[in-house]
Amino acid sequence: MSLADTAGKIAGMEIRGAGRIARAAAEALADHARTVTAPGRDAFVAEMQRAGSVLCATRPTAVSLPNAVHFVLHGCEAAASAAEARESVLSRAARFIADSEAAIARIAEYGARHIPDTATLMTHCNSEAALACILEARRLGKDITVYATEVRPRNQGLLTIRTLNDANIPTRYIVDSAARSYMNEIDLVIVGADAITVNGAVVNKIGTAQVALAAHEARTNLMVAAETYKFAPRTLLGELIPIEERAGAEVLDPAVAASLPFVTIRNPAFDVTPARYVDLIVTEKGAIPPNLAYIVIREYLGWSIDEFQKTFVIHHQDQD
Amino acid sequence: MSLADTAGKIAGMEIRGAGRIARAAAEALADHARTVTAPGRDAFVAEMQRAGSVLCATRPTAVSLPNAVHFVLHGCEAAASAAEARESVLSRAARFIADSEAAIARIAEYGARHIPDTATLMTHCNSEAALACILEARRLGKDITVYATEVRPRNQGLLTIRTLNDANIPTRYIVDSAARSYMNEIDLVIVGADAITVNGAVVNKIGTAQVALAAHEARTNLMVAAETYKFAPRTLLGELIPIEERAGAEVLDPAVAASLPFVTIRNPAFDVTPARYVDLIVTEKGAIPPNLAYIVIREYLGWSIDEFQKTFVIHHQDQD
Amino acid sequence: MSLADTAGKIAGMEIRGAGRIARAAAEALADHARTVTAPGRDAFVAEMQRAGSVLCATRPTAVSLPNAVHFVLHGCEAAASAAEARESVLSRAARFIADSEAAIARIAEYGARHIPDTATLMTHCNSEAALACILEARRLGKDITVYATEVRPRNQGLLTIRTLNDANIPTRYIVDSAARSYMNEIDLVIVGADAITVNGAVVNKIGTAQVALAAHEARTNLMVAAETYKFAPRTLLGELIPIEERAGAEVLDPAVAASLPFVTIRNPAFDVTPARYVDLIVTEKGAIPPNLAYIVIREYLGWSIDEFQKTFVIHHQDQD
Amino acid sequence: MSLADTAGKIAGMEIRGAGRIARAAAEALADHARTVTAPGRDAFVAEMQRAGSVLCATRPTAVSLPNAVHFVLHGCEAAASAAEARESVLSRAARFIADSEAAIARIAEYGARHIPDTATLMTHCNSEAALACILEARRLGKDITVYATEVRPRNQGLLTIRTLNDANIPTRYIVDSAARSYMNEIDLVIVGADAITVNGAVVNKIGTAQVALAAHEARTNLMVAAETYKFAPRTLLGELIPIEERAGAEVLDPAVAASLPFVTIRNPAFDVTPARYVDLIVTEKGAIPPNLAYIVIREYLGWSIDEFQKTFVIHHQDQD
Amino acid sequence: MSLADTAGKIAGMEIRGAGRIARAAAEALADHARTVTAPGRDAFVAEMQRAGSVLCATRPTAVSLPNAVHFVLHGCEAAASAAEARESVLSRAARFIADSEAAIARIAEYGARHIPDTATLMTHCNSEAALACILEARRLGKDITVYATEVRPRNQGLLTIRTLNDANIPTRYIVDSAARSYMNEIDLVIVGADAITVNGAVVNKIGTAQVALAAHEARTNLMVAAETYKFAPRTLLGELIPIEERAGAEVLDPAVAASLPFVTIRNPAFDVTPARYVDLIVTEKGAIPPNLAYIVIREYLGWSIDEFQKTFVIHHQDQD
Amino acid sequence: MSLADTAGKIAGMEIRGAGRIARAAAEALADHARTVTAPGRDAFVAEMQRAGSVLCATRPTAVSLPNAVHFVLHGCEAAASAAEARESVLSRAARFIADSEAAIARIAEYGARHIPDTATLMTHCNSEAALACILEARRLGKDITVYATEVRPRNQGLLTIRTLNDANIPTRYIVDSAARSYMNEIDLVIVGADAITVNGAVVNKIGTAQVALAAHEARTNLMVAAETYKFAPRTLLGELIPIEERAGAEVLDPAVAASLPFVTIRNPAFDVTPARYVDLIVTEKGAIPPNLAYIVIREYLGWSIDEFQKTFVIHHQDQD
Repeated sequence: MSLADTAGKIAGMEIRGAGRIARAAAEALADHARTVTAPGRDAFVAEMQRAGSVLCATRPTAVSLPNAVHFVLHGCEAAASAAEARESVLSRAARFIADSEAAIARIAEYGARHIPDTATLMTHCNSEAALACILEARRLGKDITVYATEVRPRNQGLLTIRTLNDANIPTRYIVDSAARSYMNEIDLVIVGADAITVNGAVVNKIGTAQVALAAHEARTNLMVAAETYKFAPRTLLGELIPIEERAGAEVLDPAVAASLPFVTIRNPAFDVTPARYVDLIVTEKGAIPPNLAYIVIREYLGWSIDEFQKTFVIHHQDQD
Repeated sequence: MSLADTAGKIAGMEIRGAGRIARAAAEALADHARTVTAPGRDAFVAEMQRAGSVLCATRPTAVSLPNAVHFVLHGCEAAASAAEARESVLSRAARFIADSEAAIARIAEYGARHIPDTATLMTHCNSEAALACILEARRLGKDITVYATEVRPRNQGLLTIRTLNDANIPTRYIVDSAARSYMNEIDLVIVGADAITVNGAVVNKIGTAQVALAAHEARTNLMVAAETYKFAPRTLLGELIPIEERAGAEVLDPAVAASLPFVTIRNPAFDVTPARYVDLIVTEKGAIPPNLAYIVIREYLGWSIDEFQKTFVIHHQDQD
Repeated sequence: MSLADTAGKIAGMEIRGAGRIARAAAEALADHARTVTAPGRDAFVAEMQRAGSVLCATRPTAVSLPNAVHFVLHGCEAAASAAEARESVLSRAARFIADSEAAIARIAEYGARHIPDTATLMTHCNSEAALACILEARRLGKDITVYATEVRPRNQGLLTIRTLNDANIPTRYIVDSAARSYMNEIDLVIVGADAITVNGAVVNKIGTAQVALAAHEARTNLMVAAETYKFAPRTLLGELIPIEERAGAEVLDPAVAASLPFVTIRNPAFDVTPARYVDLIVTEKGAIPPNLAYIVIREYLGWSIDEFQKTFVIHHQDQD
Repeated sequence: MSLADTAGKIAGMEIRGAGRIARAAAEALADHARTVTAPGRDAFVAEMQRAGSVLCATRPTAVSLPNAVHFVLHGCEAAASAAEARESVLSRAARFIADSEAAIARIAEYGARHIPDTATLMTHCNSEAALACILEARRLGKDITVYATEVRPRNQGLLTIRTLNDANIPTRYIVDSAARSYMNEIDLVIVGADAITVNGAVVNKIGTAQVALAAHEARTNLMVAAETYKFAPRTLLGELIPIEERAGAEVLDPAVAASLPFVTIRNPAFDVTPARYVDLIVTEKGAIPPNLAYIVIREYLGWSIDEFQKTFVIHHQDQD
Repeated sequence: MSLADTAGKIAGMEIRGAGRIARAAAEALADHARTVTAPGRDAFVAEMQRAGSVLCATRPTAVSLPNAVHFVLHGCEAAASAAEARESVLSRAARFIADSEAAIARIAEYGARHIPDTATLMTHCNSEAALACILEARRLGKDITVYATEVRPRNQGLLTIRTLNDANIPTRYIVDSAARSYMNEIDLVIVGADAITVNGAVVNKIGTAQVALAAHEARTNLMVAAETYKFAPRTLLGELIPIEERAGAEVLDPAVAASLPFVTIRNPAFDVTPARYVDLIVTEKGAIPPNLAYIVIREYLGWSIDEFQKTFVIHHQDQD
Repeated sequence: MSLADTAGKIAGMEIRGAGRIARAAAEALADHARTVTAPGRDAFVAEMQRAGSVLCATRPTAVSLPNAVHFVLHGCEAAASAAEARESVLSRAARFIADSEAAIARIAEYGARHIPDTATLMTHCNSEAALACILEARRLGKDITVYATEVRPRNQGLLTIRTLNDANIPTRYIVDSAARSYMNEIDLVIVGADAITVNGAVVNKIGTAQVALAAHEARTNLMVAAETYKFAPRTLLGELIPIEERAGAEVLDPAVAASLPFVTIRNPAFDVTPARYVDLIVTEKGAIPPNLAYIVIREYLGWSIDEFQKTFVIHHQDQD
């Protein structure tokens, strides 16, 4: 698949979910590295960095994108030749994809342990990592019921209930507005993340923060399942996570919208759940409280301040 | 319109909104009184009570229904003849409808005063009384912007934004899940009510409680606009408001649902906002804090304990 | 039973529970009225007032005592003769006792309605009114499980679990400290009251406030079952409810205590649950939110400001 | 003192404190009635209403002003002649002043009962009613220490500490910002009120809400001492209490301010403490929870809906 | 003492308190190593691991047990001979015991600094580390009063008040239910811990969470005193701390229980205090906020992911 | 400037602000090193340590003082001669000052990123680091309005509004008590810090905690801007930050105070904002949540436990 194809599918949400996006980006970089015919090392590296920028620009909130691009292109600049740089990109892309898949399995193992033997769960949206925990718990024989929300405006809840149904897990399907009505019956809320900031705020599908608030109100714990590449290094430097706003047509038929001149549609794709509403984040490196996001950024992602300075220049342009 | 027609339209939500439902019920009782040919006073009264029960059964949560029926049929039993009883029903039905319309105007007047001269408001669902406050504020020249939610699964938000658009009020249309994302910009949340309990809990369209919780979290006040016949007398006797659960087909295409045997759809039409998240209830008798619902029930609705005992028997059967 | 006997049994907690105490006091006053041989109306009235004071002094926190004494002696002063005053005392005592018993039945009826059809309840201490609600719900066929606490230092929980056991209600017996551990499983907490202040604070058995706080933290509602004579009129005049402190020997073997000179035992019999942790108070006059205690004091108990002034003199001496 | 003099002194805060303002207004109306030489009843009444409006306009937040004016002028319109109307004004003004002074004594009596025998109190600003409670408690021999704030920008705290000093009450004087630092040592916060709304919000000297919030955070109760004429009838009709903003010169030397073109001084004289931070309001009619403000407005102040409509016209003009 | 004896005394709570249990386990392993006559290195190591499992199974919640066993047996497997392995066990057991005792002294030093010069403290249960802080503060001349709870059902409070009495510290002994009643007088709550999870939740004697909640409500800080071996490494892998449930006979006389067929006794020995109610954890490595438990687990306990995988197999069997 | 001069100016608040104080102390130590004529290495080192103690004693709360002194004198003891020790002091003092200035620039860069493009901010007191963030945001073209408080009793707000005015930033000047009144309009509160404890509590100018509490109540984030040398290493050892209490004459004219024998002035210069009210701390090493203060202390300040023991002796004397 060409770089432009992948970028288009990510932007159009054919490729969806922070993990799947990140792996698609890694694959697209590898494909691009194979086909690029830049004359010499410098041109190759510049072209790859341009490619990375194109991918990062598709979904500004999904930090897995720059983290994946950063991982894949890392060290490429230090290569002696274009060939060596290409080799580096290919091997690191393969490693990123393998690690990402292994991460889900590890998160499922840790997260499933955290689910009681008999439990009523709630999830919002369609997180690969969150569902993996639930499926693993089921596989271990735990007696589980799940409340799943519809997730307007793109109705990702439909994907979620299909997956749960296929695993024979009793599931209750509700509109997003009904989360609080059932919260007193819920033992644990499990969601994924699109980005996690240095102070443990969780950026995830719009509506997550309301579910988290309702969980907090009812003394119900909320667990986030997230690979370490969901943590946002640049928030360490004060950067705010930009919240992507998608087309109004996702919410309202454009013909109707056109007939209502005083009405504007606001369609933020994500919201921000503060750390105080999150009990635990399960990563492939272990479970941590949200406040320890800093440790993940520094130790597992390994972004040094120096790298920041450099990387920043590139990304900053993407986001404006 | 026949009694059965009205009952059907209320159940099918063609007639919607607690005030409109109550007035339709009053009108249906009047129409029914005109056409009933029961032999003698006793039979007439019994038939009217049966008619009242039919109407009350259509939407179990909407307390405006039994309040309207109670008002219209009140005193009918004391009539000397069927003719006198019919007269009583007709005149009380007319008075209920007139009072209900006057109540909206009065609520609009009081509620509009409570809106600051420049204000960003939020509303959820399509409450006649809440919108009347907003329109009146606009008419007074206040500078108002409104965030209106979509209101899944029946999308009553569409009706709301049309009304606001036609009043030239700048409006932002958002999915229900996005309410918390904009709450810090909101000066006042205004919603209606389907029922208000003796301890000030507000039963309203599903999602209201989540909006109220998010408002409370952000120190944003929430005002409820509600005619006094929304207050639920029987809660004084410990009765819980039954929360109507509507057909799953409102949420998910039945064909899809049928393909998912482990999935059940839960579709509660209302939720309960506790009094502590409500700043003020504006009624046609003045603005009160939610805890004073008892005063409204006793003084304005005038339900005595004795009347309760009698009315209870009838309704209790309806609801089981 | 002599006045002294009744006073002794109330003080020694052989007669226990605010309702039983109040009825015992009414009976003691009636018995006393029968046997008193005071010469003339004035002496009789003075003697009866002294008797009332003696009874009120036994348990300073239990407002049902002065309310009962006030009710029984009310009007006695206006009698033309000792005989007439005696008659008044006897008939009012009988009426108080009958009303008190009827009140429990009415509270049971209202409170049982407020219990969901399937419910896990928690109760603390051994309230006649609270248990009546639970037993009535059971009688109505509701599917109920109850968590009951031990209630140190007098272990009234033992009485509670016996009553529940005899009604075939599945019961879990826990130490007082374990209430929060099970709170997420509880649908409704039901307790009684020894006194309710004008601002809705509930004075009840020590430990109630901790249970209420844990319920509030978990969004679990707390219902108080209390006859209207538990409401404390003098709090309307700013009076604080005195919290009875009982003998340390209830908590620790005096021999052990004597060996620990630096240790003092503090044994308050009651604590104060603020109104914001109470969802509803069910009285025989209907269910009300705690903030409406004022209405009960004024309308149902009927203590006017003038009566206050007079009654105050008497009681104030008792309590110092 | 002429009407203009009184109005000037109220506006200039020479006459200060809601109670003193109200009594000064009553006196000014009486003086004015004595000197007015309007030809005939109609002219006299119109002149008195104009005088009332002048007084009401001096401090828009102080609801004691319109309440006093309303009380004094009440019935004046129904007089048969100017002489009779004058008589009515004079006798009602005298009665208002006497009642107001008696109210303080009664509040002191009730409020002092609510202060524990040994207590560390905090007060903010210089409320006559709040201080009366403290002085009465001291007179009763209670062992009291008071933290008093400075109260910028007018430093009314200086008046407070003088009063407390003269009563030999150990007093700690602190800047407004230090209230939270000492809150854990405080047993009870006592403040006055300039206005109380129908839903129990307390409008009082700027800073009160911060003290109340800090008290709530530390589980310290806050008691408001307020005569019933501090309750704001028009809030029953949705009206918001206007918050007076005073001259910037009270905060910053105008010469300095003039040198800072980008700086604007904001000087609101009052803020709004929500009912949930207020434990009790002590009035001369007894202690009530804040949510019962409605009862005070309706029963003690006796403003009917009809009177509202009339009075409204007058005042509304004053405030714009 | 034989291994079986020690295991029996730990299970029977003759040996009590997480620190004492851990040291007893280390000593038991040393004694066992001395007497075991397994033929060869492999048999010796297997026998020691079996012994460790026996000890770990006695109290499933006390994480100090597996931490102590892990420390003592660490490296034993790498020994070349049974003799060398025995030597390793003996020396590491001695070091564990010495370190544990030194840890208490260091915690006392740090914790005492955190106690104000004049302070009213509260403690729950009988924690060696918590008491050490209090005794050290007393030794430094601080003016201290302590509220100590009874701690049902095993009344460990009796041991606590004896220790405090013997140190001449004024002590107030209260039932567990009375903690909230005195909380406004408390400057600092100090408790120990049986286990601390990776997200800072503190598992401690049943009732601790209620005390912590009441402290939080009153803005009273809570300090936990805990050696680093109380931190639970496996929670990093999502593991939940199992809450030991002890025999019902500790709560209710079995003869009485037998007479109540509908009554079940629930007797959890511990509860879980969430990190948000804990201000500070004082360890021998310094004071940290609860969220930094992860750092302790990784850096001070030094459990690597690899060790986890191995150790897990062993313990997992113990707990099922 | 002589050591005594610098110490005097710091104590008298001519030199103000934790950063400026720290740099002045470093400079004073350098100057002192240049002029000291101690005979031999040991005498020189002892004299420098004495000088450090003198400086540390001037403002007990400002942890930047001991951190600066510790940094400058570090290694001095290991010098072979007085000359070498002097050289060490001079070069480290220069480095401290340069680092401190660079830190402000870096904090400004990071903090400005965290300010939205259009924002209403609030600040309290006159923090160099907090203002640097605001000025940098302005320089980047962000559209900013700032509410600045007066900051009694020393009115540092005047300095703040001058700085903001000179940067052409629209500014609103309010009394400290008015912070809550405007909080719903504020997007971000930015303050500095005088000391930050190991559990993330922020010690800053009196009043900060009230602003933070009001921000938390309104879901408004609070950001702290602070150089790493504001973090207090000794809190890791349980040490409490002493809160400096300054002369009463700052609050009240001593002549007036003398006339009020029952009045004591309490003038704490700082208060403590708990970590739960702080969203983010921006340091020159990156933005972190308050709970990670431990990481800053250990990794950036590099105070080992051993150094603590030594340094402690010195400072402990200073503070008593």
